[in-house]
Amino acid sequence: MNIRFTNVKILTMEPGREIFDGELHVKDDRIVYVGPTVQEAVDPVWDREIDGEGNLLMPGFKNAHAHSGMTFLRSYADDLPLHEWLNDRVFPMEAKLTPEMIYHLTKLAILEYLTSGITAAADMYLTPDTIARAAADCGFRMVLVGAVNDFSQSVEEMERCYEVYNHYHPLVSYQLGFHAEYTTGRERLEAIADLAARKKAPVFTHNSETKAEVEGCIERNGMTPTVYLEKLGMFRYGGGGYHCVHMSPEDLDIFAEHSLYAITNPASNLKLASGIAPVEEFLQRGIPVAIGTDGPASNNCLDMFREMFLVTALAKYRENDASAVDAGKVLRMAAVGGAGSMGLSDCDILAAGKQADLILIDLHQPNMQPINHIVKNLVYSGSKSNVALTMIAGKILYERGSFFIGEDPEAIYAKANEITRRLGDAQ
Amino acid sequence: MNIRFTNVKILTMEPGREIFDGELHVKDDRIVYVGPTVQEAVDPVWDREIDGEGNLLMPGFKNAHAHSGMTFLRSYADDLPLHEWLNDRVFPMEAKLTPEMIYHLTKLAILEYLTSGITAAADMYLTPDTIARAAADCGFRMVLVGAVNDFSQSVEEMERCYEVYNHYHPLVSYQLGFHAEYTTGRERLEAIADLAARKKAPVFTHNSETKAEVEGCIERNGMTPTVYLEKLGMFRYGGGGYHCVHMSPEDLDIFAEHSLYAITNPASNLKLASGIAPVEEFLQRGIPVAIGTDGPASNNCLDMFREMFLVTALAKYRENDASAVDAGKVLRMAAVGGAGSMGLSDCDILAAGKQADLILIDLHQPNMQPINHIVKNLVYSGSKSNVALTMIAGKILYERGSFFIGEDPEAIYAKANEITRRLGDAQ
Repeated sequence: MNIRFTNVKILTMEPGREIFDGELHVKDDRIVYVGPTVQEAVDPVWDREIDGEGNLLMPGFKNAHAHSGMTFLRSYADDLPLHEWLNDRVFPMEAKLTPEMIYHLTKLAILEYLTSGITAAADMYLTPDTIARAAADCGFRMVLVGAVNDFSQSVEEMERCYEVYNHYHPLVSYQLGFHAEYTTGRERLEAIADLAARKKAPVFTHNSETKAEVEGCIERNGMTPTVYLEKLGMFRYGGGGYHCVHMSPEDLDIFAEHSLYAITNPASNLKLASGIAPVEEFLQRGIPVAIGTDGPASNNCLDMFREMFLVTALAKYRENDASAVDAGKVLRMAAVGGAGSMGLSDCDILAAGKQADLILIDLHQPNMQPINHIVKNLVYSGSKSNVALTMIAGKILYERGSFFIGEDPEAIYAKANEITRRLGDAQ
Repeated sequence: MNIRFTNVKILTMEPGREIFDGELHVKDDRIVYVGPTVQEAVDPVWDREIDGEGNLLMPGFKNAHAHSGMTFLRSYADDLPLHEWLNDRVFPMEAKLTPEMIYHLTKLAILEYLTSGITAAADMYLTPDTIARAAADCGFRMVLVGAVNDFSQSVEEMERCYEVYNHYHPLVSYQLGFHAEYTTGRERLEAIADLAARKKAPVFTHNSETKAEVEGCIERNGMTPTVYLEKLGMFRYGGGGYHCVHMSPEDLDIFAEHSLYAITNPASNLKLASGIAPVEEFLQRGIPVAIGTDGPASNNCLDMFREMFLVTALAKYRENDASAVDAGKVLRMAAVGGAGSMGLSDCDILAAGKQADLILIDLHQPNMQPINHIVKNLVYSGSKSNVALTMIAGKILYERGSFFIGEDPEAIYAKANEITRRLGDAQ
């Protein structure tokens, strides 16, 4: 498909480039032109010309940490202490999940991503095979992340997935990862570090999410999770940590030294009473930051607008400084930072030759008016209701409330409800 | 207009009543029937029958604290320290506002309220006359609140407004209020307390929003704002405090004793680095709670869904307990608590004889699926994108993205942008 967007404001997110009025052309899966309005006749013949009506085109958001298939647990067990939530509710339900169920539950998450302008997600969950299939079937860009631990997924299985899912489908890729230090024994961690060295690949994991986790690691290993993993050689080729709430100065030094991504999940960290990540400190030390929603069991929504507001508002609260972590920095984390952590170097900005992963933001809504400052409007008052269109690899998957993912959303809702009932009954 | 909603789930918010399937009838400005589906023929002839498609009808949200007309300052001066923000940006711009400007700027806020299912707002701002007119012209329910302080609005002027705006229009009412202890001298406060006694009326004010405010009051008066105002006899007939972030045990006792409303504004309190209100403590002491967005200069959006999530998520973080302030309690604050604080006893629940102030929530969207628990879905993953219809006093003012307030929203946006430019140029 060749698609031409005219009459749009464009935020390319190239460093230092301001928003400008112009147009953007898509050929097949790539952007072929971004610039001022073209006056002369333009080749090729367009399958569609979209009058943007002065609205904003920008890169899509990247959800840098999620467990998409956990949609079945949304609103199933909230308002409970963490331990009870996990052991009495989440684990027993998860134990009954089949790969086929995760296929359908992931599709439900993909629908929600599209409504929030999320064009790619890094997904750490149980069954890479059916998650990859769900993404490919919908046309959604998915970065699978290894979830090795002592109870499920072996390092050998991860190596197989790494080979298979980096050559499976243009929209699917695979990163090395493990669940967390506290669920993964030393021998296994060493095997992962070895695999990372062989593949020259970054490694991702849950890191320092709760105070108890850090204290437990110090008790077990005499050091924090970050220090321990670094000593095991885990981060020779980079990677990152999900959450990173309770970080020591030494931890931060390690993140800065290896350019590890701090992937923050503010809504989940509040709702599970884990804490507030030191995002201002990340920035001051030059640590790259990306934003994730975490899974729908702990958030419970998959909405980058809510996360963006929380990143800046919580930083302002934490630093006791209303000028901390400004809107421009947050927007960069959500669109460009996420692409960096997820290895999507072709999906970060709007430029000729890049993948056409982009969103159209409706500025003709009261929460985006008046137009004093569009970037601040996006972060402080923006909402998923402003997402008019979501395009991935040149295909429009969502437009003004309608989905184009090859399946009726009502069928996906019905399936998700049926699965949830079945799992609940089996308890 | 007589309107019949069929095929809806109904959350009346009467204490203890579960969601049920049924229908609801509106005649003129009131609800005349809420109950199970009616099988026989139903009088009267309907101007409109709305098939709710299994979606949820519930009472509208009440924005219990706002400065609606401050829309012109949205995204104008964020990411600045509070002092600089207020003195160098907000006050100079506000000094140039005319009553007519506030009329148009308030209309912009009303559009946004409608998109978020907000059916009434308590508005403390500069020009009650044009705010009342904006509300009446749009069909929006507005509770004007006195904004007396040493620099604008006298107690005599407030008494006049109290008389006038409690008999001006069915959708408009007026409550006594003053800006804050730190902007209002003792003599004036005593005059307000005297007026409240004469009118047997509650009084509302900003209370203990920042640590500096409380410390300043203790320095000036030897006691906290709450204790000081109570000793002046301010709360003999009730009322409430906006923000209530930094409250002593004695302050909480006074709020409980007089059943004063704690009106919490979590987004604003984070963004301006003011702190987190002790909402769990309010509930444990039986203090009634309502939720406000505060003004668009400090929030910056007027969205009850974001506020609801923040109320519970911040309580969980503050108490270090993921079970604090559950979803049901938050939803009650947003719909029923607000009606209580704003004196709207006819707009709190869905029942025959009550005002038809209600919203239709679209459950057929991915963030509301699966349907494990609708109330939790609303609070934890709900969004303004789920608001399918907003009705005030029996009139549909917003439906699926379209507004019915007697003026084209594009004209309101244009006006707001023009005013903002004019004010900016005048700086």
